[in-house]
Amino acid sequence: MPKPPLTDEIKTILAQPLAAVMASLRPDGSPLSVPTWYLLEDDGRILINMDDRRVRLEHVRQDPRVALTVLGESWYQHISLRGRIGEFKADTDFADIDRLSRHYGGNPYPDHEHPRTSAWIDIDHWHGWHV
Amino acid sequence: MPKPPLTDEIKTILAQPLAAVMASLRPDGSPLSVPTWYLLEDDGRILINMDDRRVRLEHVRQDPRVALTVLGESWYQHISLRGRIGEFKADTDFADIDRLSRHYGGNPYPDHEHPRTSAWIDIDHWHGWHV
Repeated sequence: MPKPPLTDEIKTILAQPLAAVMASLRPDGSPLSVPTWYLLEDDGRILINMDDRRVRLEHVRQDPRVALTVLGESWYQHISLRGRIGEFKADTDFADIDRLSRHYGGNPYPDHEHPRTSAWIDIDHWHGWHV
Repeated sequence: MPKPPLTDEIKTILAQPLAAVMASLRPDGSPLSVPTWYLLEDDGRILINMDDRRVRLEHVRQDPRVALTVLGESWYQHISLRGRIGEFKADTDFADIDRLSRHYGGNPYPDHEHPRTSAWIDIDHWHGWHV
């Protein structure tokens, strides 16, 4: 798998609001996968955002190693990344989840009640398939 | 997360050729995610099939714990499973990859040259979201 920096072609694909699945580790070391919204930041990191009620947030605080697969338009186009979460930040003003929600659906996130946390993934390796 | 058996509703969804991402573990315990074809067998296990040249096959032989997220028609419908591979079998006649390929695209798998291995996931837990 190539290491960062990402190529312009990969960045162009990741800049789209594509379906993505994130894998993280449970306390016993087993993998857990869930769909996620993501956003490629200008600095090359990947933003994700989690409801604080999700047990997954505890997991990634314990072990920040994650993987992300972003699915392209067709079955045969995908980008898979490996990395670790290098920064957590309480999304106190819901600015990050709103950014994500606008990116995917055009509107701010409807729930500004339940606390959320932003996390930024530092990419260690990436692999593009048919991109 | 509920434990097996799967409900009929979940089985009906999983019976479709949906986009899916599998998470497995690398030797250092970090997660790796890749898109995969899958097939729900009548016995409730999930069939996947790997090209023997994939390093992922070595990984899951070392640690058979995997997770699978199956994406529904919309963003908000998905099924995520956790489990472990309970059986590996050389797909010597390419019957399993052909079954998968027919399920997803209607045709047998075009490559009957490179050896492949079938693996069956025993589901430990599952979670359906908006299903």
